[in-house]
Amino acid sequence: MRGVYCDGSTARLRRDLPEPRPLPGEALLRVRVAGICDTDLQLARGYMGFRGVLGHEFVGEGPDGRRYAAEINNACHACATCRAGRPGHCPDRTVLGILNHDGAIAERVCVPQRNLHALPEAIDDLTAVFVEPLAAAFRIAEQVPLGPDVALAILGDGKLGLLCAWACRRSGARVTLIGKHSAKLALAGPGVATHLLADAPRLGRSFDVVADCTGSPTGLATALGLVRPCGTVVLKTTIAGSHDLALAPVVIDEVRVIGSRCGPFPRAIAALADGEVDVRPLIGAEFPLDDADAAFRAAAEPGARKVLVRIGCA
Amino acid sequence: MRGVYCDGSTARLRRDLPEPRPLPGEALLRVRVAGICDTDLQLARGYMGFRGVLGHEFVGEGPDGRRYAAEINNACHACATCRAGRPGHCPDRTVLGILNHDGAIAERVCVPQRNLHALPEAIDDLTAVFVEPLAAAFRIAEQVPLGPDVALAILGDGKLGLLCAWACRRSGARVTLIGKHSAKLALAGPGVATHLLADAPRLGRSFDVVADCTGSPTGLATALGLVRPCGTVVLKTTIAGSHDLALAPVVIDEVRVIGSRCGPFPRAIAALADGEVDVRPLIGAEFPLDDADAAFRAAAEPGARKVLVRIGCA
Repeated sequence: MRGVYCDGSTARLRRDLPEPRPLPGEALLRVRVAGICDTDLQLARGYMGFRGVLGHEFVGEGPDGRRYAAEINNACHACATCRAGRPGHCPDRTVLGILNHDGAIAERVCVPQRNLHALPEAIDDLTAVFVEPLAAAFRIAEQVPLGPDVALAILGDGKLGLLCAWACRRSGARVTLIGKHSAKLALAGPGVATHLLADAPRLGRSFDVVADCTGSPTGLATALGLVRPCGTVVLKTTIAGSHDLALAPVVIDEVRVIGSRCGPFPRAIAALADGEVDVRPLIGAEFPLDDADAAFRAAAEPGARKVLVRIGCA
Repeated sequence: MRGVYCDGSTARLRRDLPEPRPLPGEALLRVRVAGICDTDLQLARGYMGFRGVLGHEFVGEGPDGRRYAAEINNACHACATCRAGRPGHCPDRTVLGILNHDGAIAERVCVPQRNLHALPEAIDDLTAVFVEPLAAAFRIAEQVPLGPDVALAILGDGKLGLLCAWACRRSGARVTLIGKHSAKLALAGPGVATHLLADAPRLGRSFDVVADCTGSPTGLATALGLVRPCGTVVLKTTIAGSHDLALAPVVIDEVRVIGSRCGPFPRAIAALADGEVDVRPLIGAEFPLDDADAAFRAAAEPGARKVLVRIGCA
């Protein structure tokens, strides 16, 4: 089988991968389109020591001929963490294309049947790849009460920042997107105020909630400069390694810092199906699977929009 | 006037300090006893650039002859932050003995009248010095729901760690104190489980809430190793400077990290008055004001219990 294999220090297309064999409870899907995420680029450089097929953003075709998106955490559903209602944090979980489970930038992939979400006709294959990251964006509203009294800043005008801005736009919160690039900020569209990062100091510490989507070690410090005392900073991006950070401002200003990861697939599917969120402006390029190595190089370019790998779609 | 003056690089007793003059709304108190806090030791080394009289834990006698404890944040009570109910975070505030306001390790001190809390007879002068740090300990229960379903670990068996354990003991939460010193852990008393830090890895990630009272840059990492996914880490101690920290675990495990500072004086006064909390085991030594330099040296000894400075008491 063809697929993009990560050996812990690099990722490249291979044509000799073993055919995936479903575990009990898993379905074998034919992958139609997969996306390359910044996490994939980090994994390819050795983050988390992952070895296997990359890819956790995808749309696949099931044995029944229907199209599916799939949640990425494969939990045991038996341990104390799972029984406490947190299967996404199961200590024995595997994570699709991230932790001890082959991913979806390949011709075929196995995923637990209970993780599958059937996709309506209204969502085309390219859009469907965004179900996973858009669900992660909707996670913010699950963790932090958003409403008309809330001033929310999204820090970072990359793909995740824009998805978060769109996901939070209808919560009632007053959403401000802050980034470095006028052209990307312009994608935010109606209902989202925008500011260049250079102007952020002028905004003062005026936000009830700041979501850091920068993927940068300096994002937290910037967020702490924008959030009001007793406000909330949501960390949406994982940063590999350790970095020099000052925590005294968190204590003195009694800020809450909340990590935020995967989110509700049904909410994301509904938002994409009814046009509440239109992700097409985020698509940068499409490559066939045979050109996956070029796709990874394109995804690694600074400021790249989403790079998609077409695999089995018509 | 005599008092301990911090010049930004050291702190020492001076006998030539100007007499404090109350601002509008302030009362002039005769200080009876003051405590030396780890924050004072940090300030004396240059933390926050403070210059002035040190001291924010104290009991004083008002013009009416009554004894008072005093909250330390002197807010404007007019700005948006104050009007939003967060005067402790007023951006224009001064903080007694910490920020732009002379403190209480001196013969006399000025504090806003609205910050005063009259002390009942049941609280003696030495105990009264602990109202401020015990109130900070009670802040945890204001920020994090505690109850019989909550497993709470307090990290650090220093004075603040013990105060937090005692403050949280009656919340219903199952409280575990974790520290390096058997003798200090033994002070925790009934209703608090204790473990040596060396045994912490065996406890696993089993706590819903972990309060870091270590005052150490490594405290957060230790706390993250003890808190369950989606659990809460409360940062009780300010750490000057910046340190190497890995934030990926916060994101992956969706942990909440909450800064925690000053707390409710009435709750602390009630707990001390009715004997719910007995702070006397925390008292290490008492010095007269004329020996304040020796008092600061004693407070700086590793593992020192609370050092008190007797000033105007009988």
